[in-house]
Amino acid sequence: MRISQTCFFVSILFLALTFSCKEETNLVSENEDTASTLGAHPKLILTAQGVKDIRAQLGKLPIFDKALQEVKEEVDAEIAFGIDTPIPVDYSGGYTHARHKRNFLVLQKAGVLYQILDDEKYAKYVKDMLMQYEAMYKTLPLHPKTRSYARGKLFWQCLNDSNWLVYVSQAYDCVYNYLSEEERNKLETNLFKPFADHISIDSPQFYQRVHNHSTWGNAAVGMIGLVMNDQELIDRALYGIQGVNLDTKAKDDDGGFLNKDGKAGFLANIEEPFSPDGYYTEGPYYQRYAMYPFLIFAEGLHNVRPDLKIFEYKDGVLLKSINALLNLSDADGDFFPLNDGQKGMSYYTNALVTAVDISYHFGTQDPGLLSIAEKQNKVLLDDSGLAVALGIKNGKAKPFNKKSINLSDGPDGTQGGVGILRSEDIELVFKYAAQGSSHGHYDKLSYSLYEKGTEILQDYGLARFVNIEQKGGGNYLKENKTWAKQTIAHNTITQNETSHFNGEYEIGSKNHSELHYFSSESEEFQVVSAIEKNAYPATEMLRTMAIIKDEDFEKPYVLDIMKVTSKKAHQYDLPFYFMGQLLKTNFDYKTPETLKALGTKNGYQHLYVEGTAKLSEANSKIAWLHENKFYTATSVTSNNDELLFTRIGANDPEFNLRREAAFMLRRKNAANTLFVSTIESHGSYSPVSEFALNSNSSIKELKVVLDTEAYTAIEIVNVNGNSKLFITANTTTTKEATHTIKINNKNYTWVGSYYFK
Amino acid sequence: MRISQTCFFVSILFLALTFSCKEETNLVSENEDTASTLGAHPKLILTAQGVKDIRAQLGKLPIFDKALQEVKEEVDAEIAFGIDTPIPVDYSGGYTHARHKRNFLVLQKAGVLYQILDDEKYAKYVKDMLMQYEAMYKTLPLHPKTRSYARGKLFWQCLNDSNWLVYVSQAYDCVYNYLSEEERNKLETNLFKPFADHISIDSPQFYQRVHNHSTWGNAAVGMIGLVMNDQELIDRALYGIQGVNLDTKAKDDDGGFLNKDGKAGFLANIEEPFSPDGYYTEGPYYQRYAMYPFLIFAEGLHNVRPDLKIFEYKDGVLLKSINALLNLSDADGDFFPLNDGQKGMSYYTNALVTAVDISYHFGTQDPGLLSIAEKQNKVLLDDSGLAVALGIKNGKAKPFNKKSINLSDGPDGTQGGVGILRSEDIELVFKYAAQGSSHGHYDKLSYSLYEKGTEILQDYGLARFVNIEQKGGGNYLKENKTWAKQTIAHNTITQNETSHFNGEYEIGSKNHSELHYFSSESEEFQVVSAIEKNAYPATEMLRTMAIIKDEDFEKPYVLDIMKVTSKKAHQYDLPFYFMGQLLKTNFDYKTPETLKALGTKNGYQHLYVEGTAKLSEANSKIAWLHENKFYTATSVTSNNDELLFTRIGANDPEFNLRREAAFMLRRKNAANTLFVSTIESHGSYSPVSEFALNSNSSIKELKVVLDTEAYTAIEIVNVNGNSKLFITANTTTTKEATHTIKINNKNYTWVGSYYFK
Repeated sequence: MRISQTCFFVSILFLALTFSCKEETNLVSENEDTASTLGAHPKLILTAQGVKDIRAQLGKLPIFDKALQEVKEEVDAEIAFGIDTPIPVDYSGGYTHARHKRNFLVLQKAGVLYQILDDEKYAKYVKDMLMQYEAMYKTLPLHPKTRSYARGKLFWQCLNDSNWLVYVSQAYDCVYNYLSEEERNKLETNLFKPFADHISIDSPQFYQRVHNHSTWGNAAVGMIGLVMNDQELIDRALYGIQGVNLDTKAKDDDGGFLNKDGKAGFLANIEEPFSPDGYYTEGPYYQRYAMYPFLIFAEGLHNVRPDLKIFEYKDGVLLKSINALLNLSDADGDFFPLNDGQKGMSYYTNALVTAVDISYHFGTQDPGLLSIAEKQNKVLLDDSGLAVALGIKNGKAKPFNKKSINLSDGPDGTQGGVGILRSEDIELVFKYAAQGSSHGHYDKLSYSLYEKGTEILQDYGLARFVNIEQKGGGNYLKENKTWAKQTIAHNTITQNETSHFNGEYEIGSKNHSELHYFSSESEEFQVVSAIEKNAYPATEMLRTMAIIKDEDFEKPYVLDIMKVTSKKAHQYDLPFYFMGQLLKTNFDYKTPETLKALGTKNGYQHLYVEGTAKLSEANSKIAWLHENKFYTATSVTSNNDELLFTRIGANDPEFNLRREAAFMLRRKNAANTLFVSTIESHGSYSPVSEFALNSNSSIKELKVVLDTEAYTAIEIVNVNGNSKLFITANTTTTKEATHTIKINNKNYTWVGSYYFK
Repeated sequence: MRISQTCFFVSILFLALTFSCKEETNLVSENEDTASTLGAHPKLILTAQGVKDIRAQLGKLPIFDKALQEVKEEVDAEIAFGIDTPIPVDYSGGYTHARHKRNFLVLQKAGVLYQILDDEKYAKYVKDMLMQYEAMYKTLPLHPKTRSYARGKLFWQCLNDSNWLVYVSQAYDCVYNYLSEEERNKLETNLFKPFADHISIDSPQFYQRVHNHSTWGNAAVGMIGLVMNDQELIDRALYGIQGVNLDTKAKDDDGGFLNKDGKAGFLANIEEPFSPDGYYTEGPYYQRYAMYPFLIFAEGLHNVRPDLKIFEYKDGVLLKSINALLNLSDADGDFFPLNDGQKGMSYYTNALVTAVDISYHFGTQDPGLLSIAEKQNKVLLDDSGLAVALGIKNGKAKPFNKKSINLSDGPDGTQGGVGILRSEDIELVFKYAAQGSSHGHYDKLSYSLYEKGTEILQDYGLARFVNIEQKGGGNYLKENKTWAKQTIAHNTITQNETSHFNGEYEIGSKNHSELHYFSSESEEFQVVSAIEKNAYPATEMLRTMAIIKDEDFEKPYVLDIMKVTSKKAHQYDLPFYFMGQLLKTNFDYKTPETLKALGTKNGYQHLYVEGTAKLSEANSKIAWLHENKFYTATSVTSNNDELLFTRIGANDPEFNLRREAAFMLRRKNAANTLFVSTIESHGSYSPVSEFALNSNSSIKELKVVLDTEAYTAIEIVNVNGNSKLFITANTTTTKEATHTIKINNKNYTWVGSYYFK
């Protein structure tokens, strides 16, 4: 290994020297080339000038050289292994799926190597494999697996076929000049054009939508169009298939509408799902997935069709969205698993290497991005990766400081949003967004809580093991619908054991919560407040969540106020999906002999009841331990309240769900009602020193001192006897409004949405 | 922080220069000192010469300077905080307990600082606190908490009082010369002597035993005796209280015998619990706890009473035991939680800093120990720590390579043992030891499996949250007895739902398993085999476990053969406490609507049944995912077998148990019977790339090709069609014996206990 590395660096160095020498002698002819052949290849992602610049820097930029070496090792191993283009048979997780996926990834890399290292073996490899695909594709029927609403040919769904073309377009661009015209004609006529047609014209239900699937389709068609210089394909990519309109009520496999508004094409796909703040309505997990085609096609458009000014489109939303996405990750870079998000996906994924490099190069050269690139320890092998590598080499990197941020949702930023409050190591993610397309969950005003990248109160995420064949072929499991999407699976209110919008996508996708106010200016007190008026009939839920930094507390703590307004009496459940081991409560509870499901539907059928309590204290406290830290939830409670200890896993015949715990406040026969809680992280335990530090809550008393239609006031008294008062205005949200109220015969006057002192 | 660090190093440098200058001028008088006052202080752990050497090296040894700086910062903060010696009230976890614990740790450190930094403020601090203790102690009654079989005065149990004296003896030694004779008399008469008497003469049930508690007691009495030069105390420490004999049938809080054999004192405590290999019969968690008093008192004896040659006692077992203990840790340095072991305890604990430094200094200067000291990033502030710091500075550190090792148990090494097989990242810990005193579990022939420090098949450990007050005051929970100690809580055989030895300590402590054979010479095939004849009436269990490295497999895998011999038919349960999420089985199973406990006693009352299957395949396969790695268990099964999916947590009214899973093979009405399984770790999953690699088992077939009284032969056929044959001799264990048998008409001849090819 060490020898081959040394050899590699020596050859890079040699190459670098060679190119430096060549540079001058070839200058004239190269300029002639560029001038004479408008649209010379490569031009899509790599550019002729970019290749020249890269060659000049070889051996000088460690992170770039490392990326190049890794790619070279990978591709060399594949070349040694030989080309295999099997007849498609499998779902994701199976061999033919994995092989074709591997092929397109390697083709793209081999193309890049050919350009950078100027070694014909890579071009030949690309050509040989493309010819095998050409030979197979021209007679290839639809993929034999029938589960998809839009079957591909190489893969079981057009989505994966599109992935293939997005990557292979780049490979083709890199070897374009290596191929004879005859070879190019053969490939374009028998492979690329029909391939592009299959995923678009033949599959409008896949292509003609505003959806991350379609974005891949659009990019695929557009990128091959740019390489082939095929204006019709480019237009089809940008604006959709001319004259095709889908049934506005039809749905896809995931239950999402195919095309409710009749919009289609790459530009519509930028227009619709991104808010002006760059929030992608499906959530960060799918944004990450969609990011690559958005950005790589945008880069191609920028290079080949600079007239379109794609990076300025919709006020520069593509680059803004990268910033939004990076802010939608925890301290470890893991994306918050809003909606159907698989945990563990992070900014270390290749799509985010693309995003960070492109954002740096085509954006404002934010030095914070360089520090993320350093963590990724990888760059793109193109102009943008070169820019990042140079930035790092020149010591420009600075930490990427994630701060509290409010991201609006909806094309115009008027469909709710996601508020993230950050204070020291505590991160609160508060979701008051729109439905989020077919991958949305029914969890209005839900939240999750993190400490330094560790979940304190979790969002369950999706019920799926992506690409793990043993679990339903790696596809969505039925528990995704019966559990993960349901309201009760989230840290928010469920009324009468029924999910928001009755769990109906048609209704959910017409509604969104509304921001009440957001404030993160003060380091001591940050707050977000939003209202949901449509999740339940004739019911309004106003939730206000704050992170408070107080010198009497070791760490910032969370205050949670959920005010429910309804004329009729209902049952309300408010769960806390805490991670860790229960330590202690300040109330008695019973544990049943046998575990039974809490209910029969809407997710309740998946919860075992592990314990029950009738609450009687004014404050109910629950303490737990997780990863050697102590946590305490304190809730304002009364005789009317019950507490349930639950565990996920009932009616789960294939062990698809994680057996994780929650406690749940239950209030029956309540009309207008108020839930108030605090969550503290405190202290630590070391299994090495066996010391337990600060293992008790610092809150002595949590009190509702006022609750009217107009105002809610909460007092927090800590164990040192000091107290804080928070008053929130429930109806007036303007920053300018002046409020005056009397509580316990004392007058409080302030300007703005809330008072805190 | 940075400024204070710089200042600190400047002052260390200054101090170093000062001492270097002083050295020559003071040489004569110092030599005079040394010569004239035999037994000059400090002499116990720090020595006069050691202090001189340390001072000469200040500012030159980064790891030593860092340790010194940390101690200085800690003690300075405590001095600033002020002295508090509250009237004792609490159990462990409570304030007064924590405060007195903190006090003795800080006193020891302040004493060391006084010696090394020659700054009187530290001596004054020690003196002032000791005088406060003196004032309090002379009228102090027994601790008010009554739970202990031997109540202390400062703490609820004598054990903690002994901890206090072990540390405070060192502090006293350091300030001995700083104090006036009058002050010393006052302290010795009113504090130290009565303190030593209380934990020994007044508490023989605690002191007069062979037990880790007593070791602390012996060391405490001995160390203060060495400082005070009190021969009576030293003798009491070494040999126990003269003329006191305890009831040989009395028991302590944990259910252990107080003093079955009448042995007592420090030497008996070395003699009894350590095997000649240095294995400590209670297991590594308690060895770590006992280690500090063993070694620190030994160091004191070595310094003050070199005539006793304590480090050569019992063939140098004290130093051997450190090597054994280090080998009883996983790849992360966490000790295997055999018996009552709390997970997470590791060689990063301070007791192991002591152990590593002392082992290096007083042993053979093993350079492997230096690499552990580097990881610990801490050294003792004494002669041994100085030696380690010098070794590291001089670049002598080498990796501490843990290899497969067989450690005998029992004073003579004849009471079974623990075998650890290591192959690449896989570690198998096989326990065939003696009962292990009162902290022993009823788990003959049990095992646990690790991969790179991660548990694959777990040993549950104890049911206790040490020092976490919210959980039973931080003491043993009742589930330790009802669950953690029971056989069914372990990866071994339970017959008729009854624990080994009927869970009776009196019987268990009279018996032990026996080694059949152990072989770790071959890199391809390592094996340990042991037999248990007494756990169940008229039943023998012979378990043979191997780790096999095979080029057809990605990683080494485990072969497990449990041969049970019994004339009568019984029910057998063999659980696998796997960590992670179930992926798939090759058989159908049913999941119940409600979860019920599997039984009513012997640990079965704590297991929920989550699924049941009637097995019918010749091989039953279960696959799971844990920390992004795939695992598969393959078992030879027949129509007579059932499989249960279980989860811990039934009848656990305070959530004291972790809700972790197992699957369990159950065979009913079986007399002589054989359980054969393999455990493979294979492949990986990345939630970032979403690639699943090598996610399927490589074993096609697992077959019993022969099973007689004399031989058992297992064939393993892998998916490439290659097969391996393992034959184990069940009756003859000698390495020299020649065996010849015929299997399927083919003759096999070999020498030794087993055949593998």
